[in-house]
Amino acid sequence: MSRVYNFSAGPSFLPESVLLRAREEFLDWHGTGMSALELSHRSEEFIGIAEQAESDLREVMSIPPNYKVLFLHGGGTGQFAAVPLNLLSENKSGAYIHTGYWSGMAIEEARQFGEIHVAASGKDSGFTLIPPRESWVIPFNAAYLHYTSNETVNGVEFHTVPDVGDVPLVCDLSSNILSRSVDVSRFAISYAGAQKNMGPAGVTVVIVRDDVIRHNPHGVPSILDYERQAASGSFVNTPPTYSWYFVGLVLDWVREQGGVDVIEQHNIRKSQKLYSAIDASPFYSNPVPTEFRSRMNIPFHLADPSLEKKFAADARAAGLTTLEGHRSIGGIRASLYNAMPEAGVDALIAFMAEFERKYG
Amino acid sequence: MSRVYNFSAGPSFLPESVLLRAREEFLDWHGTGMSALELSHRSEEFIGIAEQAESDLREVMSIPPNYKVLFLHGGGTGQFAAVPLNLLSENKSGAYIHTGYWSGMAIEEARQFGEIHVAASGKDSGFTLIPPRESWVIPFNAAYLHYTSNETVNGVEFHTVPDVGDVPLVCDLSSNILSRSVDVSRFAISYAGAQKNMGPAGVTVVIVRDDVIRHNPHGVPSILDYERQAASGSFVNTPPTYSWYFVGLVLDWVREQGGVDVIEQHNIRKSQKLYSAIDASPFYSNPVPTEFRSRMNIPFHLADPSLEKKFAADARAAGLTTLEGHRSIGGIRASLYNAMPEAGVDALIAFMAEFERKYG
Repeated sequence: MSRVYNFSAGPSFLPESVLLRAREEFLDWHGTGMSALELSHRSEEFIGIAEQAESDLREVMSIPPNYKVLFLHGGGTGQFAAVPLNLLSENKSGAYIHTGYWSGMAIEEARQFGEIHVAASGKDSGFTLIPPRESWVIPFNAAYLHYTSNETVNGVEFHTVPDVGDVPLVCDLSSNILSRSVDVSRFAISYAGAQKNMGPAGVTVVIVRDDVIRHNPHGVPSILDYERQAASGSFVNTPPTYSWYFVGLVLDWVREQGGVDVIEQHNIRKSQKLYSAIDASPFYSNPVPTEFRSRMNIPFHLADPSLEKKFAADARAAGLTTLEGHRSIGGIRASLYNAMPEAGVDALIAFMAEFERKYG
Repeated sequence: MSRVYNFSAGPSFLPESVLLRAREEFLDWHGTGMSALELSHRSEEFIGIAEQAESDLREVMSIPPNYKVLFLHGGGTGQFAAVPLNLLSENKSGAYIHTGYWSGMAIEEARQFGEIHVAASGKDSGFTLIPPRESWVIPFNAAYLHYTSNETVNGVEFHTVPDVGDVPLVCDLSSNILSRSVDVSRFAISYAGAQKNMGPAGVTVVIVRDDVIRHNPHGVPSILDYERQAASGSFVNTPPTYSWYFVGLVLDWVREQGGVDVIEQHNIRKSQKLYSAIDASPFYSNPVPTEFRSRMNIPFHLADPSLEKKFAADARAAGLTTLEGHRSIGGIRASLYNAMPEAGVDALIAFMAEFERKYG
């Protein structure tokens, strides 16, 4: 079948031009007679690929020189453990903002490794809003404050970086990295699994400020140890080479689009179009107040929930795939990551109007 | 350039037919209009891929039903941590056989998490042999005994599974899995990074017997926790989907070859050919006694070590790549994993004869 519009929350839609380029060089990377899948991570070819990807990421995200950029195994969930393992010490606690499913998972994982405080929670709102900064209670012994800049399940996004004074700020950027301009220098650590806006599953980018990298005397698996990964250039063991290579291809594409600022304007327009279509109809609804709405993941319900299964199935038949909501809350979810063209959003909106006409 | 013979120790040579198939369906997996790179891990398509790969691995390795098969992030080095984290408890120690570079790394990693005993070491031999079983000293409180069935750097391989009585046996199969018939039911745990005989870097297969999976009350990152990974079908978080998919393609290829027994016969013939060529000439030498020689990784030296750099460079120009020895010991290393055809070994042997004629 011809290519569809894939609204998956991750692994997700990739730019077709990137897939075509990867396919073109699939058996013979740059005249070496080897696939990028087959390159030794110690070869000069792969080291070139790896360094270029890092340097491109530094450029498109304006990452300051006093930050290390790591390409690691383990996904965001690996970092849910790595952050407390690397940053907590005796008499210190980790502070968390609980804004939905994924920040909740980060909290649960961290509790295994030390004292954790929930400094603010959106639970009372059903995780439809971000608690105002002035309500946050950050404990005096906080080693860091962690937040999730975009909640893929709940469709809630931080549109500014919160001010937490001198407390090292840790940000899970998994689902909106490269989708908007963000001042990385505000973070001690930011990290992102690649499988939304950067490439395939299997590689996780960690951007960590030099001063929070410390020696862990024991108890940290070396694949999650910032000091050892930084010292070895993410080569503590064989890195996920093909995913790393693919991130490099996506970064080339980001630059071809005009960079993150241009992509951000597209993302604003795409998401506004879809929210407008939802808000204009009593048949569809999204519970998140405008100022907290995610540009990346737009969950919505049908007035008659019994039609939601049919909605997703009919959409799929029309070439609009993976619109099922997260299993924890059901409904419909459209993820509009960078690779989703405006034409895909238009096609979804047209399908929604037609579906409403038939069944509304 | 046309495809080369790639002797890399990993990531490594892949069967050309597998690469061609992956390229063929790169933009459209089985008529879905989506790349395998883009499939949601929760989609029925990816779940089908994942379950088929597991079932194929169970079949080709004859894995008994009382074992879980996990597909995890983190590589073999992740498992170096996972094994003690999951198996050690108070008053228990981990026992290790030290036969070279990689078992040494496993020991170093494990020391972070508990009391570790080296039950036997090949150090005095320069890691050219496996200490005889009767010399092993396994402590009475051993929670497990860990060994590395093939040392990729030193070129030493276990050709039988050691008998350690009731002590749970843990085996790192990273570099010889699927290369020979092995009775998995002898192990409590065996594991392997995929990037030698199974596929690309980024996914690690762990085969773990039900009775050693236990509840870890705290302190184990969930990506490395056997109980949680087993309970979720390796879906604690987004798994490395493309690497998992690719392992499935390689397993199809293994079956097309006639299975592991047939491949083992090829591997015996390929390695014997190369060892014979080395032994027949005073110009080349390998220090490992015959009974401990690896079929997978054959390190050798030239009588004049100053020629080794030229050897690897000239070989590369002749389409025989990545023959440089491991950085820790130098020299030359030819890795003859499953995907290396006998014609590749013949080409290497012819090149060696020609190089010796010119410079010997």
